[in-house]
Amino acid sequence: MLKHFQVPDDIAVRVDVGRLRAATEQVFMHCGVPESEARLGADVLIFADESGIDTHGVSNMLRAYVASYNSKATNPDPKMKIVRETPSTATVDGDGGLGLMIAPKAMEIAIRKAREVGTGVVVVRNSGHLGAAGYHAMMAAEQDMIGWCMTAGGKAMVPTFGAEAQLGTNPIAFAAPGKDEPPFMFDAAMTAIAGNKIGLANRLGNGMSPGWVANEDGTPDMEGGATPDFAAGSMRMQLPVGSTRELGSHKGYGLGVMVDILCGQLSFAPGFGSLSRKRRAHFVAAYSVEAFGDVDEFKENMDGMLKGLAATKPMPGHDRVFYAGLPEHETRIERRENGVPLHPEVVEWFRDICAEFEITFDLA
Amino acid sequence: MLKHFQVPDDIAVRVDVGRLRAATEQVFMHCGVPESEARLGADVLIFADESGIDTHGVSNMLRAYVASYNSKATNPDPKMKIVRETPSTATVDGDGGLGLMIAPKAMEIAIRKAREVGTGVVVVRNSGHLGAAGYHAMMAAEQDMIGWCMTAGGKAMVPTFGAEAQLGTNPIAFAAPGKDEPPFMFDAAMTAIAGNKIGLANRLGNGMSPGWVANEDGTPDMEGGATPDFAAGSMRMQLPVGSTRELGSHKGYGLGVMVDILCGQLSFAPGFGSLSRKRRAHFVAAYSVEAFGDVDEFKENMDGMLKGLAATKPMPGHDRVFYAGLPEHETRIERRENGVPLHPEVVEWFRDICAEFEITFDLA
Repeated sequence: MLKHFQVPDDIAVRVDVGRLRAATEQVFMHCGVPESEARLGADVLIFADESGIDTHGVSNMLRAYVASYNSKATNPDPKMKIVRETPSTATVDGDGGLGLMIAPKAMEIAIRKAREVGTGVVVVRNSGHLGAAGYHAMMAAEQDMIGWCMTAGGKAMVPTFGAEAQLGTNPIAFAAPGKDEPPFMFDAAMTAIAGNKIGLANRLGNGMSPGWVANEDGTPDMEGGATPDFAAGSMRMQLPVGSTRELGSHKGYGLGVMVDILCGQLSFAPGFGSLSRKRRAHFVAAYSVEAFGDVDEFKENMDGMLKGLAATKPMPGHDRVFYAGLPEHETRIERRENGVPLHPEVVEWFRDICAEFEITFDLA
Repeated sequence: MLKHFQVPDDIAVRVDVGRLRAATEQVFMHCGVPESEARLGADVLIFADESGIDTHGVSNMLRAYVASYNSKATNPDPKMKIVRETPSTATVDGDGGLGLMIAPKAMEIAIRKAREVGTGVVVVRNSGHLGAAGYHAMMAAEQDMIGWCMTAGGKAMVPTFGAEAQLGTNPIAFAAPGKDEPPFMFDAAMTAIAGNKIGLANRLGNGMSPGWVANEDGTPDMEGGATPDFAAGSMRMQLPVGSTRELGSHKGYGLGVMVDILCGQLSFAPGFGSLSRKRRAHFVAAYSVEAFGDVDEFKENMDGMLKGLAATKPMPGHDRVFYAGLPEHETRIERRENGVPLHPEVVEWFRDICAEFEITFDLA
């Protein structure tokens, strides 16, 4: 993790994971979400908080979800349905619910299909923000499968050589199980930086780093220091990973288009044929390891690889080399013991919303 | 395309595509490759040459393949077999053949399965270099499917914070059809630059650009100008796309691991559990569009998206914005008419090999 996105230790309030979970469930239920759904939604959010994915946890997302329920933009009790299906695929309509709860259900369908015919691929339209995509990918890894989750929508990424945003940050998450080693769990926006991280950096008073965004005319800002109100405005243009053509921004851009196709075109979601700002859709997939070979052997080989990566000789200034999922695993262990570090302003929001909703406030 | 990788117009020899194809087939057959296989291998190579993917065409690859057949490292007449299978998956043993001809056959299996149950995922072990991964992904797009091809192996990519190479350049190719617009075809190494491009830049007398490689101690070379013999040596350390942690190199690195898992772990290929330098494996997948919805509607939506991307307002110094596959499409039209520009040294090699193999030399 970069320091940009951590609440500084001297102001952070450590909140017990169980209490945070209970309060989050209560908030969802107060918005009209049925209890089992509220529990699921809280689980997805708390996973992010525990894992150090602070951009996608309670602190950064819950208030947006509450606002979305309150304005009726999101359906608190959606009736998700499968609109087309084959032995290995399903196209799902999310009935305007929150992706946070819809994506896990889509992944359950994918896992069932993978168990039956080897792989399951499920695409979802008419669904909202899905939280940390890594959560959904990890569901498959916990079932000895390879898991994939992507989500597309909005306008944030500026194509290579372009001077206007056309794609979302379009993250790819991918997970695979080890035997004794922490699982591999990759989850990253195809922009140089996640959209939420720009907001979080601003909230913490940090400016924008070189390579994150384009200047007004589309040229990559490789000096840094773009204005903090940039992210909120209609001018927002985030650079694809690679930042400039010379450094490979066409790769981040191309992967971003790939995510748009898999999520939006494949689910026939509204707005994807016209690059609409309002489009949003998801893609999840599960590949059963057993379909390809012996599960134990796979996990032992994975362990060998993961240990090998973590044992890579480090460059000067660094003690260790990580693989995706390892820092998150270590953070989960630490935060389950010591609590999630929240910004005091987030605790304050919880106090206010609990008072407004007449929920017992029990965080700190 | 960057100028780094183009043969300068004033020295290039334009060679007719048909003649280049015929000569390439003859060379393969002289190495012991059966005629139908030789035709397929030539088709994969010529696709790259026509499309401007010069790194993976005849000029850059054929001599390596010939050397590999001559040294018995590659089996010219492999008996590929399926070692495990489910309705949507297959694990294939390539019997030590060239991936160039094995990957298309794996993709044919994937396409057949996708037609039957919605998706097909095929992994391949014991196979050699597969040429331009985009060719194999495009096979699916031509059948109204989404196509994927990845290949993993060797040691070229240095993990973020690392000081030794652990992964291959691990390219991802992805293709999807439009209706009237040229198809989307993405094909890129997960390093900042493809391995072959370093060789090609050196051959053309160009040095290495900032962000491509790590210095000897693992620190990213952001100044450029690393020594040209770097790529050939055991010290070779290519940076993941993103180049530095601050610019997002952990994304290129994580995607590189994902490719290693999908190709190598899932195919149970030798060496992937120990990050061996000698490992190599492939992954192909086809998703039938019809399994998810109406094919015509999908293609019309794709056209809307692709036209929208190409119509993006460009930044200063650029006339146009592209999407992956569009420059390759335009290059194919131009080169089919005017021939493939080869370096005189490549034409010379053809002359020599034709003399040695007693094949009629008919290029120029």
